[in-house]
Amino acid sequence: MTKGYAALASDGDLELFDVPRRDLRPDDVSIDILYCGVCHSDLHEARNDWGFSNYPMVPGHEIVGRVQSVGSGVTSFKPGDLVGVGCYVDSCRECRPCEIGEESYCENWPTATYGSVDRHDGMPTYGGYSKHIVVSDKFVLRVPASLDLKSAGPLLCAGITTYAPLRHWKVGPEHKVAVAGLGGLGHLALKFAKAMGAEVTLFTRSPDKAEEARRLGADHIVISTDEAQMAATANAFDFVIDTIPSAHDLNPYITSLRLDGKLILLGMLEPIDPPLHGGLLMLGRKAVVSSNVGGIRETQDMLDFCAEHGITCDVEMIAMQDINVAFERLRRGDVHYRFVIDMATLGEK
Amino acid sequence: MTKGYAALASDGDLELFDVPRRDLRPDDVSIDILYCGVCHSDLHEARNDWGFSNYPMVPGHEIVGRVQSVGSGVTSFKPGDLVGVGCYVDSCRECRPCEIGEESYCENWPTATYGSVDRHDGMPTYGGYSKHIVVSDKFVLRVPASLDLKSAGPLLCAGITTYAPLRHWKVGPEHKVAVAGLGGLGHLALKFAKAMGAEVTLFTRSPDKAEEARRLGADHIVISTDEAQMAATANAFDFVIDTIPSAHDLNPYITSLRLDGKLILLGMLEPIDPPLHGGLLMLGRKAVVSSNVGGIRETQDMLDFCAEHGITCDVEMIAMQDINVAFERLRRGDVHYRFVIDMATLGEK
Repeated sequence: MTKGYAALASDGDLELFDVPRRDLRPDDVSIDILYCGVCHSDLHEARNDWGFSNYPMVPGHEIVGRVQSVGSGVTSFKPGDLVGVGCYVDSCRECRPCEIGEESYCENWPTATYGSVDRHDGMPTYGGYSKHIVVSDKFVLRVPASLDLKSAGPLLCAGITTYAPLRHWKVGPEHKVAVAGLGGLGHLALKFAKAMGAEVTLFTRSPDKAEEARRLGADHIVISTDEAQMAATANAFDFVIDTIPSAHDLNPYITSLRLDGKLILLGMLEPIDPPLHGGLLMLGRKAVVSSNVGGIRETQDMLDFCAEHGITCDVEMIAMQDINVAFERLRRGDVHYRFVIDMATLGEK
Repeated sequence: MTKGYAALASDGDLELFDVPRRDLRPDDVSIDILYCGVCHSDLHEARNDWGFSNYPMVPGHEIVGRVQSVGSGVTSFKPGDLVGVGCYVDSCRECRPCEIGEESYCENWPTATYGSVDRHDGMPTYGGYSKHIVVSDKFVLRVPASLDLKSAGPLLCAGITTYAPLRHWKVGPEHKVAVAGLGGLGHLALKFAKAMGAEVTLFTRSPDKAEEARRLGADHIVISTDEAQMAATANAFDFVIDTIPSAHDLNPYITSLRLDGKLILLGMLEPIDPPLHGGLLMLGRKAVVSSNVGGIRETQDMLDFCAEHGITCDVEMIAMQDINVAFERLRRGDVHYRFVIDMATLGEK
């Protein structure tokens, strides 16, 4: 057992909860959690916005901590190591995606860090809003010593969500990349695209975000409500990374793509409404693509890339006890750019 | 002047029409038309279904003929050569797509074979439902001698429309390709995918198309209205080539794609309705892509590929005078798989 905060139902506040943690299996790593980021999906899941939530639910999949102990078969981690845990804690390890290191695309569904069921003992998985977690070594990331620990957690979800498609589509100095939406994902997309050498533009409705966007890496700002500015973006970009989480019209962004351009859709748009126009794709050999978080190997690459390039998530630290206030601010979009819970505020284990 | 058939308005039959043809410019090739395919878009354009038609309109962009004479600067063609003309007869030749041989994606809009305006003299362009045409040498294709001339025309639109994305996405023996819709495009998609070595499946609502599909190259048939068969296609295909020209639900085809699968949308769906579900793309790093006909170089590659692999379009020959009956049959989808007009039926020039 360890202390944590749980949602007990879709309509209640999160509250203090005794979180069961299993005894170590041979491949397990036991981790004292130092910090845990607050992802927007934590709020969706706690509120059962997607209809498949299980309670009690301990959210949190942006976990940074220190190894406390390891199972008998673990050789790659030792007590004291700084480690991270992201969105998944297991997968089938047998399907084609698992075999090629793309565990997040496991055809038998990867085991989510919370709200899922352990593949071996059938127990519910509980996430990082807690003092302690036990995870199979294969799903534990190494946190480079030079990374700021407080801000490293969100890299394990918001970070890898934006890094993975940029790598998959081989973004580099020859590319013009636009980012739509300046939130947790968007601000990291600006930083990554810039660090990879691309010429970076932010689409935003708010002229007052220009200075901030430039600080984060944007070379140009396009005010998306300005018709003349939007018209001037025709055939401009190789990639548009669309991080806007709510319904919006994708067609103007498709128009802004040049030949072979890709609209990388990272918001969960279910369905895409207003609908896409197929002709816009056809007349430029364009594509609408999307992706999940990357696999474990790529997540490690991303952490190392962040250490090398000095990339961190911009965060606001909160106490565990303030999570319900943070959820309410998150619901309003009032966060720059990610809340991170300092688990020391939960007291001793 | 040459003889042809024109639509004079959106609601009338096509009728005999004197088609103006320009005197040869130095880069022009003058072509006696032998055969011209009837594309479904000819019907849409004649009826002004897309709202931008100009009249009088001489449709036809699947042209096969013989060079009659050439302009003073033409070195690559000579009288007597067998040649073809497809969807475009010119482009700006200066933008980035033009520079890399992707004229169909010209950022200043390529000049369509009919219903467009010549970039140099401002005169309307008239298509292949006529005895004769004059086209800049850069946009003239060489028809390999071993190709059946009667069926070669449709390769210049239906053929290159399906060939181009298969080449662009590098389809080969390691891939599983499904084709949705068995019409002019679909039947060629089956032939091309098979000739490129892929394992090929046809999605169809009609069990009675199975034998025909196997003749055309399909290894497997999936009845798309059969829930069990559709469920069995989850994570099955690298590519689905969707040639269905009318509104339909793309989401089941996206589900049938495996990791990194591409839905290649070739029907003109404006808009895509019912809408796409973004989560289906996200949870398999899938893409919805589309493309126009290929450029001139790739169209020549396609003709050579057809000659090498013995690929032809399955056609029904008609007389020019029967075009209105053919249009009506086309409207009902009653054609296997393309009408081709024998221009000899128009009499002497």
